[in-house]
Amino acid sequence: MTNLAVIGGDGIGPEVVAEGLKVLNAVLPGVETTDYDLGARRYHATGEVLPDSVQNELAGHDAILLGAVGDPGVPPGVLERGLLLKLRFAFDHYVNLRPARLYEGVTSPLAGVKPGDIDFVVVREGTEGLYVGAGGVLAKGTPREVATEESLNSRSGVERVIRDAFSRAQSRPRRHLTLVHKQNVLVNAGNLWSRTFTEVGKEFPDVVTEYQHVDAASMFFVTQPQRFDVVVTDNLFGDILTDIAAAISGGIGLAASGNINPTKEYPSMFEPVHGSAPDITGKGIADPTATILSVALLLDHLGHTDEADKVEAAVADDLAAREPGAGVRTSEVGDRIAARVS
Amino acid sequence: MTNLAVIGGDGIGPEVVAEGLKVLNAVLPGVETTDYDLGARRYHATGEVLPDSVQNELAGHDAILLGAVGDPGVPPGVLERGLLLKLRFAFDHYVNLRPARLYEGVTSPLAGVKPGDIDFVVVREGTEGLYVGAGGVLAKGTPREVATEESLNSRSGVERVIRDAFSRAQSRPRRHLTLVHKQNVLVNAGNLWSRTFTEVGKEFPDVVTEYQHVDAASMFFVTQPQRFDVVVTDNLFGDILTDIAAAISGGIGLAASGNINPTKEYPSMFEPVHGSAPDITGKGIADPTATILSVALLLDHLGHTDEADKVEAAVADDLAAREPGAGVRTSEVGDRIAARVS
Ligand SMILES: CC(C)[C@H](C(=O)O)[C@@H](O)C(=O)O
Ligand SMILES: CC(C)[C@H](C(=O)O)[C@@H](O)C(=O)O
Repeated sequence: MTNLAVIGGDGIGPEVVAEGLKVLNAVLPGVETTDYDLGARRYHATGEVLPDSVQNELAGHDAILLGAVGDPGVPPGVLERGLLLKLRFAFDHYVNLRPARLYEGVTSPLAGVKPGDIDFVVVREGTEGLYVGAGGVLAKGTPREVATEESLNSRSGVERVIRDAFSRAQSRPRRHLTLVHKQNVLVNAGNLWSRTFTEVGKEFPDVVTEYQHVDAASMFFVTQPQRFDVVVTDNLFGDILTDIAAAISGGIGLAASGNINPTKEYPSMFEPVHGSAPDITGKGIADPTATILSVALLLDHLGHTDEADKVEAAVADDLAAREPGAGVRTSEVGDRIAARVS
Repeated sequence: MTNLAVIGGDGIGPEVVAEGLKVLNAVLPGVETTDYDLGARRYHATGEVLPDSVQNELAGHDAILLGAVGDPGVPPGVLERGLLLKLRFAFDHYVNLRPARLYEGVTSPLAGVKPGDIDFVVVREGTEGLYVGAGGVLAKGTPREVATEESLNSRSGVERVIRDAFSRAQSRPRRHLTLVHKQNVLVNAGNLWSRTFTEVGKEFPDVVTEYQHVDAASMFFVTQPQRFDVVVTDNLFGDILTDIAAAISGGIGLAASGNINPTKEYPSMFEPVHGSAPDITGKGIADPTATILSVALLLDHLGHTDEADKVEAAVADDLAAREPGAGVRTSEVGDRIAARVS
């Protein structure tokens, strides 16, 4: 019996999560869910972000589904570092998986780009780099102030995510893997990444590899998205690249993500890339597709490959059948996709 | 008498620089130029990157025009850190200015985006952040390896570039300035940047301000480039954002940049954003427009505002008159623009 922790969160989070669960229940009846009240609301009410006891409970689940957390009243960093990144780090989510696919029926902002032209996946490292929270501040608020941020990169951390990306590339038809970094400037980390990439690549002789600087890759995402199949990169570069990837494949309303611990030692966490969108909260017009696609990633991770494929196919069909330019009703999207997978 | 140091560099560098100088000479006859042989060729021949004596000579000029340096035979970082960044840091080029404008006659890869929709300038910090070369490596080549990169940010460094950006925004019709950072994750540096932004903003009450995370900004560059007027950001974010900006406004062949020391204590350096493009070197087909637009930035910096405007207008006219889809001949572009400004 699958045991899912659900963090609806703030804003549209609970609205889109409800639809994700509707679809999950339709395709795989009987998943047990436990709701956790975490996010801005709890923070405002109690000052708590993620009590240890809650973290321990979460650890006991098979997976976590998260909607979105945050509102403009919470100081920057509090929920990000105290909740989202805390869980990514505590549960060792070293593969932050973000597929980018332009579905039939969805319009890319890129001229002349058709469905099929964009179909790649970014494997973003999730537990190292500039996200570790290393750094400090000297003489804060004075003219002498110095603020630092440190990117920490370990051989084992880099190697495991690169190996994961190679094996994903190997299982795809094109077998192409692009490493993105900035090795001409960030020479220490860049050298570690590219040396490890070359070494691990020897285990995957059938995968074609390429290196791109992050600035060039950001450009190519816009000018030649067809180039990409699997992309592996560090935490911060991955953050930026996956938002560009979302933009070119129809927007953040469709972008799914999985914070994955491939060893399954800890639960993986699945969440749409978008935020809590306070401006449209409560109107019933948030597109739950990104969450539903995140449910597909969740199913795949838990070994329910057929169900995962079914959900993705149902999403594809639903997108293809939508009235161009018409808005969505959150619950109708969930109903339609649930019906397709039942 | 203006005294210009010229670093043609490698690949197409000397080809595009020749056209930049042709235009410069046409619009402002009598600029004295001195050529400096720096880049991959010199490195391969002598092992030298930037001898102190050459750096001292460069320091004696009013400005520097650089084509492009590098070839695939030079290890990553050698010329970047030993020459380009060395000069940016030594000559305190704290304003890395990168305009993005979609000219009439140029096709954006973005659907439905017309000339006039993209007209913004990125003020990228040029002397701090992750570009300072701080960091190290432990146990290199072993399973225990750890590689670090450190971002250093000083109040004075952040303040001066933010003030520059505000004053550029104030002199533009829209008076809009966007700060881009990642303050929800890079809390130390992000807080310094956004606090300083708020404080300096009080000196410019007529400038409308906005903050965006770098991932969101990267997305908006693609989905809503009309939003932007002036953007100020740190060194690495600026590197990425300006390549996206170049991509959406017709490609790196048109993207100009100025590494500017506004105090004029040291010479500023102007260069196209593109690289040495070994694949098209010697064919006479490199587009020198980015270099010519960099010459416009150079003229503006040196106080020759009318000449700068003339060059930019001539480039705009030339682009508007080009046969759509036809390739360019490097020297013909230079001839045509030089004729227009004479
Ligand atoms: C909210 C923030 C901490 C997060 C990140 O930077 O990873 C988000 O942008 C994402 O991409 O999941
Ligand atoms: C070549 C490299 C060091 C440089 C940078 O990263 O600044 C380049 O990408 C640029 O944008 O001028």
